[in-house]
Amino acid sequence: MSVRVLALCGGIGGAKLALGLSRILPPDELAIVVNTGDDFEHLGLSISPDVDTVVYTLAGINNTELGWGLAGETWAFMDQLAKLGGEDWFRLGDCDLALHVERTRRLQAGESLTAITADVKHRLGVGPAILPMSDDPVRTIVETDEGVLPFQRYFVGRRAEPKVRALRYEGADRARPNSQVMAALEDPALEAVILCPSNPWLSVAPLLAMPQLAAALRATQAPVIAVSPIVGGQALKGPTAKLMLELGLPASAVSVARYYAGLIDGFVLDTVDAHLAGALQDDRIALDVLPTVMTDLATRKALARGVLAFAKRLRAQPERS
Amino acid sequence: MSVRVLALCGGIGGAKLALGLSRILPPDELAIVVNTGDDFEHLGLSISPDVDTVVYTLAGINNTELGWGLAGETWAFMDQLAKLGGEDWFRLGDCDLALHVERTRRLQAGESLTAITADVKHRLGVGPAILPMSDDPVRTIVETDEGVLPFQRYFVGRRAEPKVRALRYEGADRARPNSQVMAALEDPALEAVILCPSNPWLSVAPLLAMPQLAAALRATQAPVIAVSPIVGGQALKGPTAKLMLELGLPASAVSVARYYAGLIDGFVLDTVDAHLAGALQDDRIALDVLPTVMTDLATRKALARGVLAFAKRLRAQPERS
Repeated sequence: MSVRVLALCGGIGGAKLALGLSRILPPDELAIVVNTGDDFEHLGLSISPDVDTVVYTLAGINNTELGWGLAGETWAFMDQLAKLGGEDWFRLGDCDLALHVERTRRLQAGESLTAITADVKHRLGVGPAILPMSDDPVRTIVETDEGVLPFQRYFVGRRAEPKVRALRYEGADRARPNSQVMAALEDPALEAVILCPSNPWLSVAPLLAMPQLAAALRATQAPVIAVSPIVGGQALKGPTAKLMLELGLPASAVSVARYYAGLIDGFVLDTVDAHLAGALQDDRIALDVLPTVMTDLATRKALARGVLAFAKRLRAQPERS
Repeated sequence: MSVRVLALCGGIGGAKLALGLSRILPPDELAIVVNTGDDFEHLGLSISPDVDTVVYTLAGINNTELGWGLAGETWAFMDQLAKLGGEDWFRLGDCDLALHVERTRRLQAGESLTAITADVKHRLGVGPAILPMSDDPVRTIVETDEGVLPFQRYFVGRRAEPKVRALRYEGADRARPNSQVMAALEDPALEAVILCPSNPWLSVAPLLAMPQLAAALRATQAPVIAVSPIVGGQALKGPTAKLMLELGLPASAVSVARYYAGLIDGFVLDTVDAHLAGALQDDRIALDVLPTVMTDLATRKALARGVLAFAKRLRAQPERS
């Protein structure tokens, strides 16, 4: 069975829509491509925060209170690590740690992140493919008013408080995109590519920074649709709006649509932003207006259905470039 | 302050006497030398079971029910690791894991096991020096009727059930003994060397397999005293008696004393084995008979006091070779 829908996402916000898609599509027809730009090595372990968020969310074992990690997590490891003088700024739960230790061991034994992720998601009962964007290292680096910070030092260590001056994605120019993603993009059976409502600059940009992947996204015959992570000028989660202002962009869905211009065929505005359609009328991007705030499984599935219906309408438009 | 008492030990049995010694001697006057022959790399982590047993025991945080690991331990990591298909035959508790992860990170950063252990024991409030026998790898290998097994595969993985044909201590011939141990053995201030009641072949032999350390033990002016781990023909803990039979030795304190012959000046028999003194009368080893079964802190301290008094008597004998 070929992949019919490819969803690109980062962590929490994107994973919500990925979950909605996973509950309405047959598992073989959906593949989720995940940012690895915020992967890092910590305590000697290889950690892939966005991949894990997607795996845990689709497995239904994610921690909804914290917004990351596992439900019912315990912290004996971190407490003891602090007593031993270890670094405790990035919190790893006892249960979560199993994945980091096992992944690190398998990577060191020569397995790819893609192969390990495929096995892990299968063991945790997840159906759709979860594809790291690349098996080669890409590292998001944040240039701030406090100096140059690796992504997790900025995001977790400094809670995204420093002012961002620029972002770069080290290794992206050399990284080979996941071959299964490339194959799906070239497959005539592909019916939609969905950029989930993740932070465009922190979660989606690392994917687009890989030249081959960006070119394949532009070349695919399937409609590419982005769902705005900005609703009413605010990010539902995380520092997207703050970051946009620091990058000199109005914190508006319009800025997101224009950031993706040339790449996307369609853009989904939240219902509260319906009035922004006029501002985008000259941008050659098809628009849809949907409730994008996902508060429960029903709203996740509803948005997933709405986006797929939008893609179907776009496929039916013969003039689509 | 110079070290006055050097205690050599492996895991549980030896750690009990080390604890007793630590409660009756000023911390600067005691150093505990620990077997690293059962160290191994597992799940990508560097694990030092005997060192950890001694550190945890002296810190008063050891798990007395299990006989290894930490009191009040939890197992979320192991449970999740099993779900991920990881190796779960060697159980690592959530809290215990912090030491393995942090030690592995520090070893990879270039610190020595000795330096890391010194920092860890200090942070956990332990006074006496705890000295890994070497910073170079020594690995106990067990030749059994099921084939050649690394120590932990034999001891934990196969619960010491295979019949042992021979033991070897890989790397011991090249390993440099801990320099602090060598300095203490050469120091005229040293008043006693105590071979704690650990398994001679599994816990003490790896130390003796280092030629420099064995020579220094023979050359030291301080009396060397071994406490029998065999009481009434049985090992109080672990597979010592079974192992002795497999190696063709009677499971008796006499066999232990003769194994250490040429190295030790004195040997401590348990009170139930007082009748064995006659069998050892031609062996040129001074004997003492003490209650060696340590059931609580009082009996640990009492045995420690008894052994130190024995050493004092031996030091007073001018004819001691």
